[in-house]
Amino acid sequence: MLDKQHDKTKHLLVMNEKVKEFREYREKMNKRLMEADNLVLKRLFNLDTNTYMDGALPTKTKEMLGLVASMVLRCDDCIKYHLEQCFKENITTAEMYEIFAVANIVGGTIVIPHTRRAAEYWDALQEPA
Amino acid sequence: MLDKQHDKTKHLLVMNEKVKEFREYREKMNKRLMEADNLVLKRLFNLDTNTYMDGALPTKTKEMLGLVASMVLRCDDCIKYHLEQCFKENITTAEMYEIFAVANIVGGTIVIPHTRRAAEYWDALQEPA
Amino acid sequence: MLDKQHDKTKHLLVMNEKVKEFREYREKMNKRLMEADNLVLKRLFNLDTNTYMDGALPTKTKEMLGLVASMVLRCDDCIKYHLEQCFKENITTAEMYEIFAVANIVGGTIVIPHTRRAAEYWDALQEPA
Amino acid sequence: MLDKQHDKTKHLLVMNEKVKEFREYREKMNKRLMEADNLVLKRLFNLDTNTYMDGALPTKTKEMLGLVASMVLRCDDCIKYHLEQCFKENITTAEMYEIFAVANIVGGTIVIPHTRRAAEYWDALQEPA
Amino acid sequence: MLDKQHDKTKHLLVMNEKVKEFREYREKMNKRLMEADNLVLKRLFNLDTNTYMDGALPTKTKEMLGLVASMVLRCDDCIKYHLEQCFKENITTAEMYEIFAVANIVGGTIVIPHTRRAAEYWDALQEPA
Amino acid sequence: MLDKQHDKTKHLLVMNEKVKEFREYREKMNKRLMEADNLVLKRLFNLDTNTYMDGALPTKTKEMLGLVASMVLRCDDCIKYHLEQCFKENITTAEMYEIFAVANIVGGTIVIPHTRRAAEYWDALQEPA
Repeated sequence: MLDKQHDKTKHLLVMNEKVKEFREYREKMNKRLMEADNLVLKRLFNLDTNTYMDGALPTKTKEMLGLVASMVLRCDDCIKYHLEQCFKENITTAEMYEIFAVANIVGGTIVIPHTRRAAEYWDALQEPA
Repeated sequence: MLDKQHDKTKHLLVMNEKVKEFREYREKMNKRLMEADNLVLKRLFNLDTNTYMDGALPTKTKEMLGLVASMVLRCDDCIKYHLEQCFKENITTAEMYEIFAVANIVGGTIVIPHTRRAAEYWDALQEPA
Repeated sequence: MLDKQHDKTKHLLVMNEKVKEFREYREKMNKRLMEADNLVLKRLFNLDTNTYMDGALPTKTKEMLGLVASMVLRCDDCIKYHLEQCFKENITTAEMYEIFAVANIVGGTIVIPHTRRAAEYWDALQEPA
Repeated sequence: MLDKQHDKTKHLLVMNEKVKEFREYREKMNKRLMEADNLVLKRLFNLDTNTYMDGALPTKTKEMLGLVASMVLRCDDCIKYHLEQCFKENITTAEMYEIFAVANIVGGTIVIPHTRRAAEYWDALQEPA
Repeated sequence: MLDKQHDKTKHLLVMNEKVKEFREYREKMNKRLMEADNLVLKRLFNLDTNTYMDGALPTKTKEMLGLVASMVLRCDDCIKYHLEQCFKENITTAEMYEIFAVANIVGGTIVIPHTRRAAEYWDALQEPA
Repeated sequence: MLDKQHDKTKHLLVMNEKVKEFREYREKMNKRLMEADNLVLKRLFNLDTNTYMDGALPTKTKEMLGLVASMVLRCDDCIKYHLEQCFKENITTAEMYEIFAVANIVGGTIVIPHTRRAAEYWDALQEPA
């Protein structure tokens, strides 16, 4: 039993490491992209942020929309980003799996491998930092 | 002015015709697909219906998810179908355009032509039958 | 009952018209593309033909592969072309619907509208010319 | 011979009609989208225009980039739009077919049906208005 | 020569490790997805299994269809899974490369990187466990 | 400051390692694919090379076209390959970011994660071997 406990702790650290790694690489490279000072890219990044702000639809709904769109387009990094935003918006795991269900029905079984990784990342986000 | 009125009425009829045409073809061919009695297709159709039922998330949210997924995957007929469901769920035009915005930001300008057709169909749905 | 008979005949003609139209436009524009004398395009067209020739796998299997690939990539004209080839290879309707099933499971419900049109075209091909 | 001449003229009119139709529908619906006054969509449209302006790369090159991107993503209306821009930039037919070649090699034979329609539209643009 | 032998053995172990890793992660996360008890996902997984069962078409053909569909949609994990199923169905390497050929012709050169990884995994499957 | 210098050198080595790794794996597996002696694949590879040769458009332009197509189709390995070719064609970083801009506007924010990796690889290519 101790071993299992140990395994669990190790797993937890590995998982949180994944969250950390994703965030750091994303931040580092976004900074690099901004430094290049391409006006179109800069404005697109800015517009991307605005898209998910509260409006006729609340941020929570928009983040769900962003997530499902990322899932059917099968972009793992986009999925991770929107999972983080959904986590901040207090989306429950039951709600999350219903988003997964829509993505898999609309996009088909090719979405499954991305759902596996999404589920793993979602679990990682629930863990204490 | 009378001419403009006339034009408007004609346009309205043409639009509603589009809604009718879409529904009839969809119904006819779905019936054809079911007649073929392929178990996998039948169960997938059934599962598709279940996906959008009230659960942890309400049907309204799920239909928005289905719509945005259809938009970024650029499937005009899927878009029309989910527009109809969104219309039944009393989604407002302001909300609809925020869904359009998410789809266009995530999926890029190649989503614009589908957004044009979606906007036209959405307007058609608002018109008296 | 006579009316229904009449409707059926009319539908049949409309259907066969679709087959004819597709073939004519395809032939006309392929000819136009070849006239442009672009070496890469010409060789790609040639290679495309070779791909489906009997080899370790028979043409029949390869045409099924070409069809399912066209379905999940949702290219209606490619689907029509491979449906014609499958028809020539004496693929049965039961087999065809199992190909449809694989395409819809792998590619998701966004493949359904293309399956509707595929089913319609498949039926048209069965009809006397 | 006279008949052929006649056929040719009729074809020419049909073709130019296609160009006209595309432009009118596009303009009408873009206007409709703008009227909805969604800030994200408005700014995206604006950004889209800026993207193709002369910069480190000239407009001509950027329009070729936009076209090839539209072709591999298989968006017929986006293709038409960029064909028009390429036409304005005096791209030759030989150059155009090399763009087609890249699109078909990168994107595969599923790009062929879109290339057929692109070739037809390109020919239509060459004709006297 | 001994070194080369050694290199070969090491490579073999690394390869088999890849097969093992893929299977373990897939199994672990599928279990996680099932635990979430989302009815739609559970039924979709079940339906996925049924899709490839002997019917009008034999499992062997259907697995080839599933593979080519996964290749043109460029989902590496789906490709690996179907490669394993094809291996179980005694598909030969010559047949496999003809499937690769169809996928690359239909889907274009963007399928090549996935074909590289598919070829590597296919070779790994041939090796003694 | 010395530490930062050290970090920079280490980073540089890691980066160049990425370039080396990509090239080696690509070369090794391309060789493997050719060994299988599938005529269609061999001719497609050959045709792929021809596509980017000087013609009505110069290689430089064609490589930009190949890159933007790879970006909107979101194939990281294809992107790396075309980045290398663009580097050989002396494309500047300002030009490169305008290609990135077109890809992100046409393909949407799902292209951003690929742009991050592309920017990193592009920087790596600038570094002394």
